[in-house]
Amino acid sequence: MEAAELVDRVVAGERRALARLLTYVEDGTPARLRAAVAGLHGRSGRAALVGVTGSPGVGKSTLSNALVTEWRRRGRTVAVLAIDPTSPFSGGALLGDRVRMQDHVLDDAVYVRSMASRGHLGGLSWAAPQALTVLDAAGFDVVLVETVGVGQAEVEIASLADTTVVALAPGMGDAIQAAKAGILEIADVYCVNKADREGADRTVRELRDMQALGHGEWLAPILKTVAATGDGVAELADAIDRHRDWLSTSGVLDDRRLARARRQVADIALETIRRRVAGLGEGAALDDLARQVAARQLDPYAAADVLLATIDTA
Amino acid sequence: MEAAELVDRVVAGERRALARLLTYVEDGTPARLRAAVAGLHGRSGRAALVGVTGSPGVGKSTLSNALVTEWRRRGRTVAVLAIDPTSPFSGGALLGDRVRMQDHVLDDAVYVRSMASRGHLGGLSWAAPQALTVLDAAGFDVVLVETVGVGQAEVEIASLADTTVVALAPGMGDAIQAAKAGILEIADVYCVNKADREGADRTVRELRDMQALGHGEWLAPILKTVAATGDGVAELADAIDRHRDWLSTSGVLDDRRLARARRQVADIALETIRRRVAGLGEGAALDDLARQVAARQLDPYAAADVLLATIDTA
Repeated sequence: MEAAELVDRVVAGERRALARLLTYVEDGTPARLRAAVAGLHGRSGRAALVGVTGSPGVGKSTLSNALVTEWRRRGRTVAVLAIDPTSPFSGGALLGDRVRMQDHVLDDAVYVRSMASRGHLGGLSWAAPQALTVLDAAGFDVVLVETVGVGQAEVEIASLADTTVVALAPGMGDAIQAAKAGILEIADVYCVNKADREGADRTVRELRDMQALGHGEWLAPILKTVAATGDGVAELADAIDRHRDWLSTSGVLDDRRLARARRQVADIALETIRRRVAGLGEGAALDDLARQVAARQLDPYAAADVLLATIDTA
Repeated sequence: MEAAELVDRVVAGERRALARLLTYVEDGTPARLRAAVAGLHGRSGRAALVGVTGSPGVGKSTLSNALVTEWRRRGRTVAVLAIDPTSPFSGGALLGDRVRMQDHVLDDAVYVRSMASRGHLGGLSWAAPQALTVLDAAGFDVVLVETVGVGQAEVEIASLADTTVVALAPGMGDAIQAAKAGILEIADVYCVNKADREGADRTVRELRDMQALGHGEWLAPILKTVAATGDGVAELADAIDRHRDWLSTSGVLDDRRLARARRQVADIALETIRRRVAGLGEGAALDDLARQVAARQLDPYAAADVLLATIDTA
């Protein structure tokens, strides 16, 4: 299928075209992807981009599922981009699309796509923004990005969202642990899930204490949910809406989107250069240099110089 | 201080010289760092590089502390490189060197250094290998790299170690959660810490079941520890030694070090190019392009092309 046709079909809401385009994004197929994203970019910018992140075990999948249910109740269409770690055994996303979002399998207004967090040409930080552009342009009201863990890659992905929900669970560690995980910086809304468990109020209190440190004009609200029963999920959806309203009226939404565009352009430019440096990661020259470095005959800087001299960066 | 002098002092065991050199690594000060790492590279390769990783809350700091105690008991000198998330408030590592490793503050044979996981010129994946080279060449028997979380950056850092210990705790989630966190791929030794808590045996069992999937010739042993009391820590240290022996006799150590050298050379080469592309992340040209992209007047690929045309990559 030509890129232009693919774009038209995606915009027309054809799910198979959408799936194919997202596969191009995952594979990093440059030419077709480029043409398609270029075509879709102008139609993007309408969806509310919501990120959900948190440590393993806090119940993110269940929470995302419950949020989708709530949004559907409010008549909104939803796309879910679930970032999964890649398993070396399956060679793909560990939790496939099929085991996710069981409640919404038959709902045409919900589209779920898993994306493996490793093994992308150019890395996930390159693939994820393109995938969001595609889902946004496909016309969904909400695009939910769910990430596992709170490592650097997850923080980067969270920065793609307009509103980032950081999920915690009681008894998974105290406030210092939460701070160690780097969540203070990225949370627009805190969600203490599994709030029927002991220690939920303590976790809320600790979060509140840490917030005293200040987080700009928006004070991230702290919600309690029991995603498995749906308790508190409507309030969470309200908080996300309030954050989005604040983003719009304060002008912060424009700032965030500008910063995002900046990074996206820089990343694409860097990735383009990286590809120009074609043999860098693969050539026999590098193998030979690595052997000398491992044998301590050459230091890594000198080896890098030799490598750079052999390739054409232009 | 000149690089050559700094190298001599580091090799002579002078702690202030070591601290200064590691600051160059963190700051990414290119010329001096380059000369120093080049000088030290030939003296590295002797230390056992041990990584400890796991989700927040499993007690990694306590476990590292207990391992250091055990290694000291065995007469080994130890350097600890603790990778901390950067707090936007402190502008540095959240848990400083001083609050870590309280037990070893007065022990000259133990050196502890924190490194923030963000904000490095060239990224942590570029800084961490250099820091390991420096600590290795400084003559420590063991260099322990402790990372918070199990995101992409942590997995990359774990790949720098000869032996990676993945720490878990009972009740922090089941086997699927562990797999979601991507630990299957990187563990050489599993450590179920806080093993005096309920559910420890269940966690061990689940790990064992997942191992049935196969992990090459080395079957990662599953140890139980209570780091706070020191229970099981000697056995953990034994397991780490056994893994190292296996690495040496099987030839896998050479393979790993070759792969690491390969990546280090490629990373330095890429970083060098990135710096040549001087204005990429900062220039006014990018600001202007980002505005057009955010306004949907230009697609990001076209913007990247314009950006690349304005800079000299040679």
